[in-house]
Amino acid sequence: MIKGIAASAGIAVSKVFKLQHPVLNIEKVDSDASVELKRLEDALELTKNDIRIIKEKAVGKLSDEELAIFDAHLMVAEDPEFIGQIQEIINSESVNADYATNQVATMFIGMFEGMDDPYFKERAADIKDVTYRMMCHILKLQIPDLSAIDHEVVIVAEDLTPSDTAQLDRRYVKGFVTEIGGRTSHSAIMARSLEIPAVVGAGKLLDTVNHDDEIILDALSGVVIFNPTAQQKEEYTQKGAEFMAHKESLKVLKDAKSETTDGHHVELAGNIGTPNDVDGVLNNGGEGIGLYRTEFLYMDAAELPNEEDQYIAYKKVLEIMAPRRVVVRTLDIGGDKELPYLKFPHEMNPFLGYRAIRLCLDRTDIFRTQVRALLRASVHGTLSIMFPMIATIQEFRDAKAIVEDEKKNLSKEGVEFSDSIELGMMVEIPAAAVLADQFAKEADFFSIGTNDLIQYSMAADRMNEKVSYLYQPYSPSILRLVKMTIDGAHKEGKWCGMCGEMAGDEKAIPLLLGLGLDEFSMSASSILEARSIVRSLSYGEMKELADKALNLPTTEDVLALLDATLNK
Amino acid sequence: MIKGIAASAGIAVSKVFKLQHPVLNIEKVDSDASVELKRLEDALELTKNDIRIIKEKAVGKLSDEELAIFDAHLMVAEDPEFIGQIQEIINSESVNADYATNQVATMFIGMFEGMDDPYFKERAADIKDVTYRMMCHILKLQIPDLSAIDHEVVIVAEDLTPSDTAQLDRRYVKGFVTEIGGRTSHSAIMARSLEIPAVVGAGKLLDTVNHDDEIILDALSGVVIFNPTAQQKEEYTQKGAEFMAHKESLKVLKDAKSETTDGHHVELAGNIGTPNDVDGVLNNGGEGIGLYRTEFLYMDAAELPNEEDQYIAYKKVLEIMAPRRVVVRTLDIGGDKELPYLKFPHEMNPFLGYRAIRLCLDRTDIFRTQVRALLRASVHGTLSIMFPMIATIQEFRDAKAIVEDEKKNLSKEGVEFSDSIELGMMVEIPAAAVLADQFAKEADFFSIGTNDLIQYSMAADRMNEKVSYLYQPYSPSILRLVKMTIDGAHKEGKWCGMCGEMAGDEKAIPLLLGLGLDEFSMSASSILEARSIVRSLSYGEMKELADKALNLPTTEDVLALLDATLNK
Repeated sequence: MIKGIAASAGIAVSKVFKLQHPVLNIEKVDSDASVELKRLEDALELTKNDIRIIKEKAVGKLSDEELAIFDAHLMVAEDPEFIGQIQEIINSESVNADYATNQVATMFIGMFEGMDDPYFKERAADIKDVTYRMMCHILKLQIPDLSAIDHEVVIVAEDLTPSDTAQLDRRYVKGFVTEIGGRTSHSAIMARSLEIPAVVGAGKLLDTVNHDDEIILDALSGVVIFNPTAQQKEEYTQKGAEFMAHKESLKVLKDAKSETTDGHHVELAGNIGTPNDVDGVLNNGGEGIGLYRTEFLYMDAAELPNEEDQYIAYKKVLEIMAPRRVVVRTLDIGGDKELPYLKFPHEMNPFLGYRAIRLCLDRTDIFRTQVRALLRASVHGTLSIMFPMIATIQEFRDAKAIVEDEKKNLSKEGVEFSDSIELGMMVEIPAAAVLADQFAKEADFFSIGTNDLIQYSMAADRMNEKVSYLYQPYSPSILRLVKMTIDGAHKEGKWCGMCGEMAGDEKAIPLLLGLGLDEFSMSASSILEARSIVRSLSYGEMKELADKALNLPTTEDVLALLDATLNK
Repeated sequence: MIKGIAASAGIAVSKVFKLQHPVLNIEKVDSDASVELKRLEDALELTKNDIRIIKEKAVGKLSDEELAIFDAHLMVAEDPEFIGQIQEIINSESVNADYATNQVATMFIGMFEGMDDPYFKERAADIKDVTYRMMCHILKLQIPDLSAIDHEVVIVAEDLTPSDTAQLDRRYVKGFVTEIGGRTSHSAIMARSLEIPAVVGAGKLLDTVNHDDEIILDALSGVVIFNPTAQQKEEYTQKGAEFMAHKESLKVLKDAKSETTDGHHVELAGNIGTPNDVDGVLNNGGEGIGLYRTEFLYMDAAELPNEEDQYIAYKKVLEIMAPRRVVVRTLDIGGDKELPYLKFPHEMNPFLGYRAIRLCLDRTDIFRTQVRALLRASVHGTLSIMFPMIATIQEFRDAKAIVEDEKKNLSKEGVEFSDSIELGMMVEIPAAAVLADQFAKEADFFSIGTNDLIQYSMAADRMNEKVSYLYQPYSPSILRLVKMTIDGAHKEGKWCGMCGEMAGDEKAIPLLLGLGLDEFSMSASSILEARSIVRSLSYGEMKELADKALNLPTTEDVLALLDATLNK
């Protein structure tokens, strides 16, 4: 029995498919540049061919959105800057092609992995995947083919690459276990998106596990059992059936109200990164988009996206969601999130640096383009614009003034825009939370960004393992800041949402409900469960619970209170 | 008329002494290592000799504390690691001695200058000073001798080195102006300490100024006038006399009560870094030590200071101050403040990283040594121990448990310690400020660290120019956090102090008084002025002022309110 991280809920009782990728052993070797350039070129052709074949096989099995990953991979393999850098190393150092590829790959992967954003992490995974394939071809090593699986299995692997996950056929692959990774690694994200049960970060497995071993995967509690007893198999088959039944029961909630037992209504919305994500939100009964991250448009381009490209993306989301509300967050980039075409000076503490609205109020050229695209798109649905990283009321006023200014410009040009666009702000900086009543006089709404709010309130970088113990969403300090924000909004008749990870956390929902949160925005896959929880709770009781939690000293006390109240 | 930064208050009407240091032009030249090692050795001897002579001449003119700087300089010139690295470069690269010295100096200076702490900045200035002198000797260039000045002057220079400032004879040097530097640069700090009027960062001057030009130095408003009119000279001579009269009038406040016109008493204490700083606090009428930074003990050593060395330092401060209170802050190091003998992994955001109490609760060996030294010293005066960077109540409990544990150990060993040591904490993390009422149930006192509190509350690194506009002490958000902290303490009958820069800020004192702050700890030179301000104000009126400020939207509004209320 092995314990890992439950990354995608579900239970499977099946047989092991042991996935072993070739191990690369890359050393720097002096070689003739022209020979190595040819090896690189051949490997690139084979790589591109592979990607095309995998994509073709996947058509029909995967959604358009899932298939898009292969286009991203082709883009990497065809990226002249990327390939050019590899050729440059081969030419200037007269070294082997696999070494040069590895050098450039390591640099790009490191750059993207260091960024605290799921899109950049995906990009890192894509580069890793494609360059791994290239290096296998250079070294003439065979990559296993998951699309050939034709019977029910649970895959056991060190990790799954994006092309692995894209080849998973849900008819046969009942789950997977990986040795490495965490809840936010690529394979974990894909497992949730594909709704395949998964346990990640389970530690060394491949040395002791055999192909066709029997396996129980309990991705509810993160447990993996190899060669189980008959009794265990029966028990977990039963548990799996119950889980599936619960999941089915959630589906009927798709069009149900998000209402407590005593009639208090909240809004359950989805977080998205691209127009392609909208379907997932609607299929899971999302009542709106509470956070549309627009960084994707900037990241997935070789230069700053122009107004027209942005307009098309915003319009698409607004149209599909209409008349439901779409909250678009303006560009949240800078500091640790760099773009290849936008270089900033190195910062000692990028999380406390030049980013988001600070950058936009400085580089108003970039900001105005986005604002114009949003205003033009506003006629196609119900748009709310949200500014990230607001610390002072002056910043909010400055951002708002630019929106008003661009409205005037569009009017002069005879271009239409909606006259009912809400202008709101993220509350993710402590200074904003404690002054929420004043901010609420000028902003139309708040959306609490818990990831940053917790990080700044605790003065602890949540990506830094040495202090990650201070990332405490249930801390009474954080609950008080959330409470101040909600109360500040309500005092002025405004609404307050939350779009950080906490909003979709089953354990946090009762507390947030009790604190008076109006809107919960989360990943699409969490919405139905959240609705089920809201419908099972009494608002009156949760208010009492929240009041008690606000007056406790520690996180541990809050967790104990939750446990005692909700599991009685 | 030139505008600079007023770094040390005062006015001088005098003549220019133009100080020009030789300009070094260092290029990398291939050379014989043995020749260069000899050049280095000769220059080192001359440098050490210079330092000894300057010190001898200064005896009698300078205080023991001021003379200590020359010992620090000798330590640099004799540091085997430092000199060893220069020799290493000469040996391995066969390059010129001045180049090698410059390489090593640049590295060390950069390391210390990057640290946000006055002691490390001083250390950077010391290294710069000594290595400059070494390179001048290697290149056979003459350094001007300020101790030869024998008539009244105002020095005009690019910048003053520590050995320059240590040679200033206050009988003749009536002030100085520098082209570069800011309020926290070495020369600015020394000017305040020596009570010599100074304007720094005045921009290019030396090209246009001549020796013996007439000069007016208005270091109250940061203005410098060359070749003034007779009327200007009269006007500023008058202003200077008024300033001196005000300064004299402050001296009578040395033993006066820190009490408002309506009888509300506060405590005005001093911040210190070494036992040598205590005299300055007492001479300026400090009622206690509100912050004893202990990093100096760790920085000024080649390895972790042992219990005995620490005991001696703490005992000295406690004895001199007794029976007044001394608040000792436990080690606040890590993150950006590294020690040569304590290496930590590189952090992406050191200000949000592994430092202060986080490090001490992890490296309890280091922490216990300091705690034992403090407990042993406690019998010699009135000791309060303060933990930095407390974010959660659990951390406070953990730190307190270690103190209690060491008390038990000392009891077993038969070692005495005071039974009335207060255990308190810095409030410099937003999470602590908003939960102050809960913390106050367990801590004996709070001291608000405004520099960090503002930085975290605004999510803006105050060392980062791009976002330094967000360092807003008068922001209503910050005032509210200060208010929460003070109210939290008072609710449980505890006292609340402040030891950040804001506590000594003339403009902030009325607000802080109105918010109910009990203790203001500041640099010694600010205490008398602060007392004068406190004695001129009505507590009742300041409470009204603070209440109004708490309900304003922006920093600008608070500043306008202060202006309207206090300058009427």
